[in-house]
Amino acid sequence: MAEQRFRPGSPRVLVAGATGFAGALAAHLLWRHPGFELAALTARAPEGRALEELYPRYRVPLEIGELERAPLEELDAAIVAYPHAAAAGAVALLHERGARVIDLSADFRLSDRATYERWYGPHPRPELLAQAVYGLTELHRERIAAASIVANPGCYPTAAVLALAPLARAGLLADVVIDAKQGLSGAGRGAPAEVAHLSYAAENITPYQVAGHRHTPEIEEQLGALGAGLAVQFQAHLVSLDQGEMASCYVTPTRPVRAQELAELYARAYEREPFVEVAAAPPGVREVRETNYCRIFAAADRHTGKVLVFSAIDNLWKGTSSQAVQNLNVMFGLPEEEGLL
Amino acid sequence: MAEQRFRPGSPRVLVAGATGFAGALAAHLLWRHPGFELAALTARAPEGRALEELYPRYRVPLEIGELERAPLEELDAAIVAYPHAAAAGAVALLHERGARVIDLSADFRLSDRATYERWYGPHPRPELLAQAVYGLTELHRERIAAASIVANPGCYPTAAVLALAPLARAGLLADVVIDAKQGLSGAGRGAPAEVAHLSYAAENITPYQVAGHRHTPEIEEQLGALGAGLAVQFQAHLVSLDQGEMASCYVTPTRPVRAQELAELYARAYEREPFVEVAAAPPGVREVRETNYCRIFAAADRHTGKVLVFSAIDNLWKGTSSQAVQNLNVMFGLPEEEGLL
Amino acid sequence: MAEQRFRPGSPRVLVAGATGFAGALAAHLLWRHPGFELAALTARAPEGRALEELYPRYRVPLEIGELERAPLEELDAAIVAYPHAAAAGAVALLHERGARVIDLSADFRLSDRATYERWYGPHPRPELLAQAVYGLTELHRERIAAASIVANPGCYPTAAVLALAPLARAGLLADVVIDAKQGLSGAGRGAPAEVAHLSYAAENITPYQVAGHRHTPEIEEQLGALGAGLAVQFQAHLVSLDQGEMASCYVTPTRPVRAQELAELYARAYEREPFVEVAAAPPGVREVRETNYCRIFAAADRHTGKVLVFSAIDNLWKGTSSQAVQNLNVMFGLPEEEGLL
Amino acid sequence: MAEQRFRPGSPRVLVAGATGFAGALAAHLLWRHPGFELAALTARAPEGRALEELYPRYRVPLEIGELERAPLEELDAAIVAYPHAAAAGAVALLHERGARVIDLSADFRLSDRATYERWYGPHPRPELLAQAVYGLTELHRERIAAASIVANPGCYPTAAVLALAPLARAGLLADVVIDAKQGLSGAGRGAPAEVAHLSYAAENITPYQVAGHRHTPEIEEQLGALGAGLAVQFQAHLVSLDQGEMASCYVTPTRPVRAQELAELYARAYEREPFVEVAAAPPGVREVRETNYCRIFAAADRHTGKVLVFSAIDNLWKGTSSQAVQNLNVMFGLPEEEGLL
Repeated sequence: MAEQRFRPGSPRVLVAGATGFAGALAAHLLWRHPGFELAALTARAPEGRALEELYPRYRVPLEIGELERAPLEELDAAIVAYPHAAAAGAVALLHERGARVIDLSADFRLSDRATYERWYGPHPRPELLAQAVYGLTELHRERIAAASIVANPGCYPTAAVLALAPLARAGLLADVVIDAKQGLSGAGRGAPAEVAHLSYAAENITPYQVAGHRHTPEIEEQLGALGAGLAVQFQAHLVSLDQGEMASCYVTPTRPVRAQELAELYARAYEREPFVEVAAAPPGVREVRETNYCRIFAAADRHTGKVLVFSAIDNLWKGTSSQAVQNLNVMFGLPEEEGLL
Repeated sequence: MAEQRFRPGSPRVLVAGATGFAGALAAHLLWRHPGFELAALTARAPEGRALEELYPRYRVPLEIGELERAPLEELDAAIVAYPHAAAAGAVALLHERGARVIDLSADFRLSDRATYERWYGPHPRPELLAQAVYGLTELHRERIAAASIVANPGCYPTAAVLALAPLARAGLLADVVIDAKQGLSGAGRGAPAEVAHLSYAAENITPYQVAGHRHTPEIEEQLGALGAGLAVQFQAHLVSLDQGEMASCYVTPTRPVRAQELAELYARAYEREPFVEVAAAPPGVREVRETNYCRIFAAADRHTGKVLVFSAIDNLWKGTSSQAVQNLNVMFGLPEEEGLL
Repeated sequence: MAEQRFRPGSPRVLVAGATGFAGALAAHLLWRHPGFELAALTARAPEGRALEELYPRYRVPLEIGELERAPLEELDAAIVAYPHAAAAGAVALLHERGARVIDLSADFRLSDRATYERWYGPHPRPELLAQAVYGLTELHRERIAAASIVANPGCYPTAAVLALAPLARAGLLADVVIDAKQGLSGAGRGAPAEVAHLSYAAENITPYQVAGHRHTPEIEEQLGALGAGLAVQFQAHLVSLDQGEMASCYVTPTRPVRAQELAELYARAYEREPFVEVAAAPPGVREVRETNYCRIFAAADRHTGKVLVFSAIDNLWKGTSSQAVQNLNVMFGLPEEEGLL
Repeated sequence: MAEQRFRPGSPRVLVAGATGFAGALAAHLLWRHPGFELAALTARAPEGRALEELYPRYRVPLEIGELERAPLEELDAAIVAYPHAAAAGAVALLHERGARVIDLSADFRLSDRATYERWYGPHPRPELLAQAVYGLTELHRERIAAASIVANPGCYPTAAVLALAPLARAGLLADVVIDAKQGLSGAGRGAPAEVAHLSYAAENITPYQVAGHRHTPEIEEQLGALGAGLAVQFQAHLVSLDQGEMASCYVTPTRPVRAQELAELYARAYEREPFVEVAAAPPGVREVRETNYCRIFAAADRHTGKVLVFSAIDNLWKGTSSQAVQNLNVMFGLPEEEGLL
C-alpha cells in the first residue's frame, strides 16, 4: 500500500512523535484512512528514516522530520505523541498555528492544575487547560466534536471508566478496586531492558507503580464527573504479551445489585455504542487485539455481594491511537467507524 | 540422568496420576531427590509409555502402569495427582495399604464435608476427612510431620494464604479482594483447545470461573483458622505464559496500617522460612519460576488506606508438586530444602 | 460489525469447514468483504453454535450448520476447509451444484494422481483432477480467473515457491534446501496437547515430519513447471508463536550469481505484484502478520557461492485463507486487493 | 539460598562481566556449585549493585565491583564474559596473575590470527593464542584439563559441531547447510529495542547476519580439525522465545548413507558422553532448557539422499555458561556433571 487513498479535500493531519509505539500506530491508521491525508510525520529525534524502516509492518513510507520544519500552516489537525510535560509545548505550537490537536499525553487530561502538578510536576501550559476536552469518546462525544484540544485518555482509564461508568451514573459505587494487566507495548519503545527485553518479559507477570499510579486521578476525575466521588484503588501489572489490556474491577455497591439489573444496566448503557461490546461471557484481550473495541462483562457475586466488571481493550488501539482516530472522526464529522473496521 | 541416586534405605514413593502436569513434575523431582526412591508411576490411562516419552524434559525413564498392578505393599508414601472426586478412592486404597499419602486434589482440603459438597458434589470418602492435614507447609508443619494423609493446597490458596496470613493473624483483615493470574499449565494437560492451544492462549488474558471459583472456600477456611472469618472475593485469570502465578491482594484493614508496621509484620512472619522470600520490590513470577519459593511484597496505600500484598509462586512447583515434596521431606524427617534447591 | 455490508448482487459464498482455523478466518474475511455475501457456514461437526462463539475475535454471528442442509442451489462459490481426502467429496458436491470451489486441502494440488496417492493414499475423486487449477495467484492468475475448481496452495509451498520462482525460471536451481518455520496455528485446532498446548509449545522449537513432509511434491511440481525439475530438501519446524511462517531457502546455483543480478531478478519478477514485497533487509514474520503479503529477501553468499532467499508470510493468511479470498477476487473479476488491505 | 555451600579448600573463581546474561548465569551456577567458591563478581560498568538486584531469579547476593579492585592474587580461576576484543585484555590480566581463565568471547576461539582479524578486526593479544584450548568439552576434554586459557565455544558452534562431528570424522561431509534458530537471550542484554523489546520480538522469526555470521569460521575450523575441510553455509535466525537453540543441519554426504549406519554412528560417538543425548525422535529445545544437555537426532532422507541432523541446546547453558562450568569441572578434576544436574 505504497500510496494513500484519501478523498480529495480530506483534512490534513500531522503526527508528532511518530517514532514511538503510539505515534507510529496513529500514522499507520491515518495512512489507510479514506477520510484523512497523513501530511507529515515528526519526532523529537527523527533518526532520518522513513517510518517503514522503524516499523516495517505499518508500511508508511513517509520520512520522519522535525516539527520545526514541518508545514504547520497547511494542517487541519495533529496528533501529538510525546511524553507528558514535553507534549504541552508541541500542543501549544500546533494549536497556535490553527490545527485541532489530539494530545496522547497526560498533559491536558486533568482539569485541575493542582492535581496535575501533584502527580506530574509543574504544568508547562496551564493556560490551555480550560480549552481541552477529555477524549473518552463514549462519554464526551459532543464536546469532542467541537474541541480544539482533545486530551486522549490513558489506556487504563479508557478500560476502567468504560467498565465503571454505568455503575457510577447509577450511584452504585461505594468502593472500587481496579486490578489492571497490560502487555509490554504499554511500557513504550524506550523501556529499559530489565522491563521490556523478551528475556526479562517473557513468562512474567509483575505489578508496577504499586500504590501510586498516575492514572488514578484521571479515573477518579472521570468517575467523579458521573457522580461517583471516591478514592479508587488502581493497580497495574505487566504481563508477557505485546498488545492487550484487561481491567478487572471489584466494586462494593452502595446497595445489593442483582444479575438481571446489572445486565440491563450495561445493555442500555452501551446499546448504541459502535465500539463497546457488552459480552455474554468473560472476554479475553485477544478478542479485541488490533481493534478499537472495548469488550465488557459484568457479574454479581452472590457470595460477597460485590459487583465484578471485566473490561478488555487493546492498549495501543482503543487505549491510545485508534481512539485518537475515533476522536478525529468525531471532530471532522466523519462516520465514527471510518478507517477503524 | 538415567539412574536414580538415592541413599540406601530411602522411603519408597509412588506417584499416581503421572501423565498429568502435576504428577509428572512430582515424578521428576523425586527421581532426582537423594532421599527418596521413586518406586513406581501409575495413571488411570497409562498409555503404555515411559514418562520421558510424554515429558522428555523430565528425563524419567520409568514406565507408567496401572495403580491396581503396582507394588503397593512395599511403599512408604504416595503422591496422588488425580482430579477431585476421583482422587479420594486412590487415597483410600493407598492409605489402607499403609502408605502415607499426599493428595494433590481438593478432596481432603476442606475440613467440613458440607462445604466440600456445596462446591464439588458428594464426597466419596468422608470418613477419611478427619485424618487429613492441610499441607501448606509454612502453616501446618508440625501436624504434617505426623500426618498419614496430607491434602496438598491448591495453587491459588498457597499464594493467597501465604500473602494474607500475617495480616490475618494480626486481626487486620476487614475486606479482601484477591485478583490472581496464572499461566496455562494451571489449566492442565486436558484443557480444551479453546483454552490451552497456543493459538488461543498466546497474547491473551482471560478471567475465568467468575464469581464462584472453588478455591474460595479453601482460602476462607485457612484464613478463618488464623482468626479472620470473612467472605473473600477471589478471582482467577489465565495469562499467556506457561508456569507462574501472581496473587494480587487488596485488603481493607480493620485499622490504619503504616508501611513500617507492615514491613516488620512480614519480616517477622517469614524470617525463618526457607521458601518464603519477603521482597524489597514487587516480584515478577519469573523470579520464582521452577522453584519452591513464594516471593511476597506488601505495601500500604496512603491514598486509599488499603494494604496491598503481591505473592508470586510457580503454580506447578510451590503451588503443587514441589510443595508436595517439601511436605514429604517434613513427613520423613529430611531437611526441608533437600531436593528442592 | 454485526451486519455484512456487501454490494447488492455480490456473489454468494459458502464456507465449509468453518470451525477450523482456516475456515473461520476465511469466513471472517468474507464477512467484511464489500464484494461478496457470506451466505452460509457449515462444518462436519457443527456444534450448533455461531462462529463468534468459537472465535469471538472474528465477530461473525452466523450459525454453523450442516453442509447437507445448506442452500447449495443459491451459491456462486464455496471455500472448502476440510482435511485432505475428506475435502474431495465436498468439493465434488458443491461443484456439481454449480458453485465455483476453492479447496484449501491437498486433494487437488498435485496434477498427477499417482504422486498424490504415494503421499496421501487413494484419491477420492480423481476424475476432477483435470479441472483443478493450482491457486498460487502470482503464478496462475489467468487460469484461476477461469477455473471452476481452485486448489489453494499449502502454506509452505506458497512461501517457498514465491521465494524460488525467479531462480527457477532463470534456470538457476541446481540444489535446494528449504528450512521452514511456522507458528502453532499451522498445527490446526485439533492438534494434540503434546504439540499445541501452550505448556508444551511455549519456548519451543521442534522439527517435524523429518525427511518426508507432504508439501515436498507440491513444491517440486510447481518448480518443475517453471523449468526446474529437481528433488527438493524441505523441512518444517514448529516455533512458539501463533501465526507466521518463514521459509529459508539455500540454493546451490547452476552458475555463479552476483548480488546485483539477484536484486534485479527479484525486483523484475515481482514489480507488479500487489502482495509480494521484495525487501531491502531480511524480513521478520511480524511484518506480514495478519496480511496477505509475502515478503522476500534474497542474498548471494560470496563465501559459499550459494544463494539465500528468505520468504515470510502469515501461514493462515497468504498461506491459506486470505490467498483464497485473493483467488476469489480474481475468479469474480474484482480488484485483487479488495477486502485484503 | 543466601549462602554458598562449597567444600573447604574449593578453588576460588571470579566472574568478570557479571552484569550480562552469560556472566550472570555463570555466577548463578557457581554460587550453587559444591566444588567452587564464587569469590568475586566484576563488570566493566558495575552499577554498584548486587547481582540479585539485576537478576533476582539467580539469587546471588554478591556485589558487582571493578576488575581492577578485585582480589586477583587469591584466585584459582576466572570466567570472562566480555564482548570480543574487550575480553582479551581481561584474559591476559587474569592469566598473568596466575588464574586459569575461561573466556566466553570469540577472542581465543580461532587458532589462526589472520582468520580472526578478517572477521573481528585486530587481535589485542595474539601472543596468547597458542596457549588457548578450544573449550568444546566433548572434543577436547584432555587438553582442556591441562589448559591455562580455555576459549569457550560460541553457542552456534556448540550445537553445530556436536551435530556434525560424527559425520566429519567418518569423512562423510561433502556439503553442509546449517539453519540455526535461537531465542532472544542470544541477542544479549544490550540488544536494541528493535531486536529485543517484546513488542518487536514476540510472534516473530527473523534471519540475521545473512551470508556472513562470525560463527562460520569457528565451525569450519573445528570440522576441519576432524578431517572435513569445507566451506559451511551457516545462517542464524532469532525466534520469539527466551532461551533455546536449534541447529538444523542439511548434509550432502560423500557417499550414500543408510539410516542404520547413521544410527550406529551417532550412538557410538556419544555413548559415554554425560551431556549429549542421541534422541529417538526430533528434539524440541524445551527438552534441554536450563540444562547442559545437547540433544541430537539424525535422519537419512531417501528422497534427496541428504543426511539431516537436528541439535538442540540451551544457548545460555550448554551454549555458553554451563559449558564453562563443565570445563571448570574438567580443569580442576571434579566430576564432570557436578553442579550441573
